[in-house]
Amino acid sequence: MQAHIRFDDEGLHLLDQRIVPAEVAWLTLTSAQDTADAIRDMVVRGAPAIGITAAYGMVLAHRRGTDLTQAATTLLASRPTAVNLRWAVERLQALPTERWEAEARAIHDEDIAMCKSMGGHGAELLPEGATLYTHCNAGALATGGWGTAVGVVRSAWATGKLSRVFAGETRPYLQGARLTAWECEQEGIPCTLVTDSTAATLLSTGRIDAVVVGADRVAANGDVANKIGTLGLAVMAKHYGVPFYVAMPTSTIDPRTPTGAGIPIEERDADEVRGFRDTRWAADVDVFNPAFDVTPAALVTAWITEDGRWEPPATP
Amino acid sequence: MQAHIRFDDEGLHLLDQRIVPAEVAWLTLTSAQDTADAIRDMVVRGAPAIGITAAYGMVLAHRRGTDLTQAATTLLASRPTAVNLRWAVERLQALPTERWEAEARAIHDEDIAMCKSMGGHGAELLPEGATLYTHCNAGALATGGWGTAVGVVRSAWATGKLSRVFAGETRPYLQGARLTAWECEQEGIPCTLVTDSTAATLLSTGRIDAVVVGADRVAANGDVANKIGTLGLAVMAKHYGVPFYVAMPTSTIDPRTPTGAGIPIEERDADEVRGFRDTRWAADVDVFNPAFDVTPAALVTAWITEDGRWEPPATP
Repeated sequence: MQAHIRFDDEGLHLLDQRIVPAEVAWLTLTSAQDTADAIRDMVVRGAPAIGITAAYGMVLAHRRGTDLTQAATTLLASRPTAVNLRWAVERLQALPTERWEAEARAIHDEDIAMCKSMGGHGAELLPEGATLYTHCNAGALATGGWGTAVGVVRSAWATGKLSRVFAGETRPYLQGARLTAWECEQEGIPCTLVTDSTAATLLSTGRIDAVVVGADRVAANGDVANKIGTLGLAVMAKHYGVPFYVAMPTSTIDPRTPTGAGIPIEERDADEVRGFRDTRWAADVDVFNPAFDVTPAALVTAWITEDGRWEPPATP
Repeated sequence: MQAHIRFDDEGLHLLDQRIVPAEVAWLTLTSAQDTADAIRDMVVRGAPAIGITAAYGMVLAHRRGTDLTQAATTLLASRPTAVNLRWAVERLQALPTERWEAEARAIHDEDIAMCKSMGGHGAELLPEGATLYTHCNAGALATGGWGTAVGVVRSAWATGKLSRVFAGETRPYLQGARLTAWECEQEGIPCTLVTDSTAATLLSTGRIDAVVVGADRVAANGDVANKIGTLGLAVMAKHYGVPFYVAMPTSTIDPRTPTGAGIPIEERDADEVRGFRDTRWAADVDVFNPAFDVTPAALVTAWITEDGRWEPPATP
């Protein structure tokens, strides 16, 4: 798959994920403000990809001579839940500005390498001929270019261990239907798209060997903030005795957040639930639209990082 | 709310539920074939409403002089899961044809009375100021005109016991977003629309006093076939200790089906999942689209019928 984040002298080029797969179009950004807008508007999404994008946004701010503290504040405010955003911005801020571009590129390259390593560790946990279930898009498009949860899918496919992956469509923003299904199709990975409500049927009938999801932030105790719907999957996987794996780079672990209760959960616009894009199907009714939920550590079978299995430190 | 099924000398008038709430338009049907098409195409849906509609369809067949066995076969084949369809058709077939129209009207009137009775029994189980969660549309539009699960919501509201109902949008056909939210709005019942994936967040944070759903068929042992997503809700409700109520007329209980394993589950068109109506968002990927799932009796706190609480007979 072609890189969906590219940086050159012209600026930061992002594949517009809002319109994939109907259109494959690119935006070119030249300022930190544009970059923050693109993150907020979900031109790019996924915790690792947001981190990489924000790092390049800081480079753009430096290139244009923008106030760098202001640029960082703008970028950090663009979306509240993903911790990688803060992690990437702070990683640049710790260095002299002349090293920022190289550091942003390093964050990007490291992410791809980490995802491949993570994918390999995850695939090791699976049985031969595994059928997986994944939610949202923790894929190439959510990262530097390989994927966390979908990275595990890719690695399992590459090593001949994967039979099929079921992709939950992931309302309201449909990242599973639009992005994960498209990524799998491009790679020739057998993928079946289902509504989020179909997971219980699949899990209850023994058709799923493991659920694999990504994470937007993992608290120090192992609680996982991820796309809305993840908690329900974890509860169902527990009920039916199906392993529930979370794949994430260690940069997604937030030692400053002791438990999931401390993770801010973004609430998004009601119109995302009243319809999709320009199509409206609901009346003008009240809506509750949290973008993420928090899965308690007790429901997680294993956390998989670039270093292998991670365990939250034992509490004192 | 205006009746959504009306029968007169002109024919059978159905509110076209495929386009509510964007448009409030009616179709007039004059044959059993048209009636079967309307059921299959989901102009009308919901087990009790399908039964009533099919009964009127038989009256139309008689009025037109159609072969009545053929008409029954056509109607019974229109949708496979709801048992009320067979129940209503057989109820007419047991009578001489000159009594069919009166019998169809009786089925319709009885349904409304049964739903009101059921609603009252259900409301009795709720605490004061209850917040409920419901799935799909087991409302006026799914029945003769009051609702099963939404009938409980209505009765709780009428007696001052209801604080709010959360309506899951119910992908792929969005009966919750389009129909339940609209019905509540028309009645002034406080209703908040959520994606199906948001249920876990609501249940895990103690915001829901009970989940109330309808049923398309209840097996003799109490297993419940209902809209896809119901099983997941039941698993989550069990995990979080929230009562899970199924509201249905006794005509939904199928003594000829010993357990849920014997209930045929309709699979619908892949395009329902690849998009909604004319809006397509997914690529041309493989889809699994079962319209219903089966919730085992062990996950049901109580079955509520027009007679009060029902219990599956103890197995021999």
